[in-house]
Amino acid sequence: MITNVELINIGDELLIGQIVNTNATWIGQQLSLSGYWLKQITTIGDNEQEIIDALNAAKSRAQIILITGGLGPTKDDLTKDVLCKYFNTHLVFDKQAYSDIENIFHARGKVVTETNKRQAELPSACVPIYNKKGTAPGMWFNYGEHVFVSMPGVPFEMQAMMQNDVLPKLKQQYKAMPIVHKTILTQGIGESDLSDRIASWENDLPPHFKLAYLPAAGMVRLRLTGKGVEDMERDMNQRISKLKELIAPYIFGYDDDTIQSVVGSLLLEKQKTIAVAESCTGGFLSHLITSIPGSSAYFMGGTVSYSNASKMSQLSVSEQSLKDYGAVSEAVAIEMAIGARKIYNTDFALSITGIAGPGGGSVEKPIGTVWMGIATHDSCYARKFLLGTNRLRIIQVAADTALNMLRKEIIEHY
Amino acid sequence: MITNVELINIGDELLIGQIVNTNATWIGQQLSLSGYWLKQITTIGDNEQEIIDALNAAKSRAQIILITGGLGPTKDDLTKDVLCKYFNTHLVFDKQAYSDIENIFHARGKVVTETNKRQAELPSACVPIYNKKGTAPGMWFNYGEHVFVSMPGVPFEMQAMMQNDVLPKLKQQYKAMPIVHKTILTQGIGESDLSDRIASWENDLPPHFKLAYLPAAGMVRLRLTGKGVEDMERDMNQRISKLKELIAPYIFGYDDDTIQSVVGSLLLEKQKTIAVAESCTGGFLSHLITSIPGSSAYFMGGTVSYSNASKMSQLSVSEQSLKDYGAVSEAVAIEMAIGARKIYNTDFALSITGIAGPGGGSVEKPIGTVWMGIATHDSCYARKFLLGTNRLRIIQVAADTALNMLRKEIIEHY
Repeated sequence: MITNVELINIGDELLIGQIVNTNATWIGQQLSLSGYWLKQITTIGDNEQEIIDALNAAKSRAQIILITGGLGPTKDDLTKDVLCKYFNTHLVFDKQAYSDIENIFHARGKVVTETNKRQAELPSACVPIYNKKGTAPGMWFNYGEHVFVSMPGVPFEMQAMMQNDVLPKLKQQYKAMPIVHKTILTQGIGESDLSDRIASWENDLPPHFKLAYLPAAGMVRLRLTGKGVEDMERDMNQRISKLKELIAPYIFGYDDDTIQSVVGSLLLEKQKTIAVAESCTGGFLSHLITSIPGSSAYFMGGTVSYSNASKMSQLSVSEQSLKDYGAVSEAVAIEMAIGARKIYNTDFALSITGIAGPGGGSVEKPIGTVWMGIATHDSCYARKFLLGTNRLRIIQVAADTALNMLRKEIIEHY
Repeated sequence: MITNVELINIGDELLIGQIVNTNATWIGQQLSLSGYWLKQITTIGDNEQEIIDALNAAKSRAQIILITGGLGPTKDDLTKDVLCKYFNTHLVFDKQAYSDIENIFHARGKVVTETNKRQAELPSACVPIYNKKGTAPGMWFNYGEHVFVSMPGVPFEMQAMMQNDVLPKLKQQYKAMPIVHKTILTQGIGESDLSDRIASWENDLPPHFKLAYLPAAGMVRLRLTGKGVEDMERDMNQRISKLKELIAPYIFGYDDDTIQSVVGSLLLEKQKTIAVAESCTGGFLSHLITSIPGSSAYFMGGTVSYSNASKMSQLSVSEQSLKDYGAVSEAVAIEMAIGARKIYNTDFALSITGIAGPGGGSVEKPIGTVWMGIATHDSCYARKFLLGTNRLRIIQVAADTALNMLRKEIIEHY
């Protein structure tokens, strides 16, 4: 018997489209990975009666009701008071919650305000879920066969509570259905080309296995899910290894890997260092690399040379090359990579120079034209890519693609 | 009397978090701008009974029910058949819909498949909404005081139908309520400090005005919404100007502004240029600045100096300062800013050096300690901030804070 879950997202900002409801997406992924079925997502405003109606409706359909939002310290946040009414309980001051709030303020060099102090008052009927990343504690209410869990709407606070407290507690209390997931991350091949390559493999899947194509900027994730049948691991592994043979050249990682985490692990393993020289990506490549904790062990630095002058002064790109071929060219990409490797004294350097638009395009070099260079101790080359016309997508895909160039270089030659 | 709208999004992929529900965000924005109130968003799977239950529930709360998804040509798409049952009608072949489908296929050099041909069959009870961008027509059902509108889930197909057909028809049939929104963007003050400062102003708000606090990393957005009363603009503007007086030092922009767009406009207006030197933000500050189209007019470049060696070689930070004060110090922040301004030959330079964690913290310099420097033609100073313990949040807030330092410097002295 499947345990049904419902999610209630509270906040006017979701109804008027001021923010995208990424919490629902993330929670849906986590529940599905944990073997629970998210039956319905209900988004409502900060309104007492609507919250109570939504709680009653969800209770009539699901055993587990997750709630996000409306826990801020200000007047428009009603969730805590409404839950007090709903469960016919009252607020009590919680020492632990208060010391968490103190720590948050302390870490930001501030003292707790009266308004925030009230966030330490919790319904006496709930089991508090303490918040190490923000000032609003979560609340866990056991209610007959049902459980209601209220969490803050701030994504990284909610995510920490789900992973550290809520999902583990749910697994103790409710049977999850057998479920296995395996995700393969590919780069350099489109969704439909992938599906053509693996068509016969996909057609052989039994009904309890489902393949999902999850395209994202510059990559396609393939997620195979087995659901509802015991002991699927062995079967899953066999199918995955068959799949890997079919698309080996395009695979760069698995499950929660990112191209920056995969490249980071490779650099650590080989004890190599890297620097980057960026033009059109404007620092995003450096940002991706340094978003990985511990990246300072292999990332020495990067130069964002947006102007030709800085390409020459900072990366010793020759004025001649800029004049003869233009800033977006094979020659300049290679010189940028060589320059970055030299000034940061690293084993490898990546360079990106291109036209992200909306301006700057021409007939022979349209928007989306991007040259990427790589320099090593004994080689140096550049490749040209056409990455569409959307500025932010060009930046994202260019950075991912450059990291994948480095990954292949390391795997093939080191 | 307010016309309530409900939105029903149909599709398993939304429940397991395979795609983000950007349709709900976009539709919420459009309705709000048009003066309709989106009361609830309900997301359910491709399941007949759940769709019927959602339709009945929405009908009991709202006059207008918008539906997206489940109109594809494959077996798992049920919406059209369920609507036939719900309105007790039957499918009829629609010539216009079929010729639309033919055109789509011809444009792709293909002939219509039998599966797609069935997409031209529509419920006889509906007014078809023809689809010029895809193969699934929309359906408009008048039903007593209610209207039900079914649209495809593909965003650009749905958006075209909403703008060209659905919103204009709704405005003929239902009175839109007067609605005004104004958002003020603040930096450098917390949600609760804000609410303390404006408490009496907020308490004076009449019931048809509502204030929302929308905190995000490093900033708080204040959104004032007036609803349901005619001619609120004047009252709105008076309240906003009062509010501005109360929190003037913290305001950096309005509505859809970002700190990077505001700083970019200032630099363009004053015809000044900027460069940056980053350590712990690892390129994210450069990325924010260059995410603005046209930023090449004022952004000359940036250096990500992750290692002490590169701080010295690239930014001429003195070995003495690094030895005496450490990389995360006022002296080094100032030297980094001076160095960046010099090598990129700009009017201004910003620097950021700090400890983003998870490693590298100490008692006197805990994780989250960040020094930010600014160099101009006649001044140079640095400030210290404590930005919590979450690596990515520290990076985000540090970049926003540095940009706000520059904004204040320009406004006060240029």
